[in-house]
Amino acid sequence: MRHIISALVQNVPGVLSHVSGMLASRGYNIDSLAVGETEDNRFSRMTFVVVGDHSVLTQVRAQLEKIVTVVKVDDISEKEYVERDLMLIRVHATEETRSSILELVHIFRASIVDVDPQMLMIEISGKESKVEAFINVMRPFGIADLVRTGRIALPRSNAEYIKPHN
Amino acid sequence: MRHIISALVQNVPGVLSHVSGMLASRGYNIDSLAVGETEDNRFSRMTFVVVGDHSVLTQVRAQLEKIVTVVKVDDISEKEYVERDLMLIRVHATEETRSSILELVHIFRASIVDVDPQMLMIEISGKESKVEAFINVMRPFGIADLVRTGRIALPRSNAEYIKPHN
Repeated sequence: MRHIISALVQNVPGVLSHVSGMLASRGYNIDSLAVGETEDNRFSRMTFVVVGDHSVLTQVRAQLEKIVTVVKVDDISEKEYVERDLMLIRVHATEETRSSILELVHIFRASIVDVDPQMLMIEISGKESKVEAFINVMRPFGIADLVRTGRIALPRSNAEYIKPHN
Repeated sequence: MRHIISALVQNVPGVLSHVSGMLASRGYNIDSLAVGETEDNRFSRMTFVVVGDHSVLTQVRAQLEKIVTVVKVDDISEKEYVERDLMLIRVHATEETRSSILELVHIFRASIVDVDPQMLMIEISGKESKVEAFINVMRPFGIADLVRTGRIALPRSNAEYIKPHN
């Protein structure tokens, strides 16, 4: 199973290294990682995707909570949540293929951020599955380069964020 | 100075821990980090922002290149590039304030991804400065939560990506 873990961490050197070292030493499989600022510059938020069963998740949480620079750990995916991934992708585009690419960009609500005679650079955000579907439709045109942020997520609603059936 | 480093790394356990351990042990100041999949599932791409002068950058590159699981290191910011950061933000919204928030969402080309009677969840992508300007205009309404991905970037054009004046 796929869990999205959100950890609020102190914004000090070494915290990322502690967290990633702990995860690596125990062999947990991290699919993606995003580390960004929060509104409070004393803290950063790390969002990562861990694949494993419930016992793996419980271990990861327990280990994270032992790290003194980790302030708070949440399993976002146990609640209703919104998940996003951002990608920049450069695709080969000729006069013949450009309008086909633009149609697909429109369908996926992506946007063109750069253009030159041989290439288009496209920005797209969405769920992981949407971003991957877009990679698949761009592949026949020739992908020159791509870069992705890794997932971020926020719980959907207020009130303890509990799903109705929980 | 602010450098955007892009490192293509082998998709094996421990690579993130090696990289972040190296950076932490030498006291480099990492502003943000994004780790995402590439088109080839043997590799991931790490994008990070390092603040420092040219000698710091040279050291970081040299140290990164020593790590066997690091395949390739680029300083994206020495070229023309497109940079993006993605944020999900939950803002308090009442019947009185909702339309003001929606106006700002429209001006910033952000989008609403969730709504309940007390809150709006908004997705916005752009340069760091745009995302930070949006945080500033949302602050008076009351920010409940926010999460950011960290920067990703791609060089603008082909042909060795050299700026005309280089």
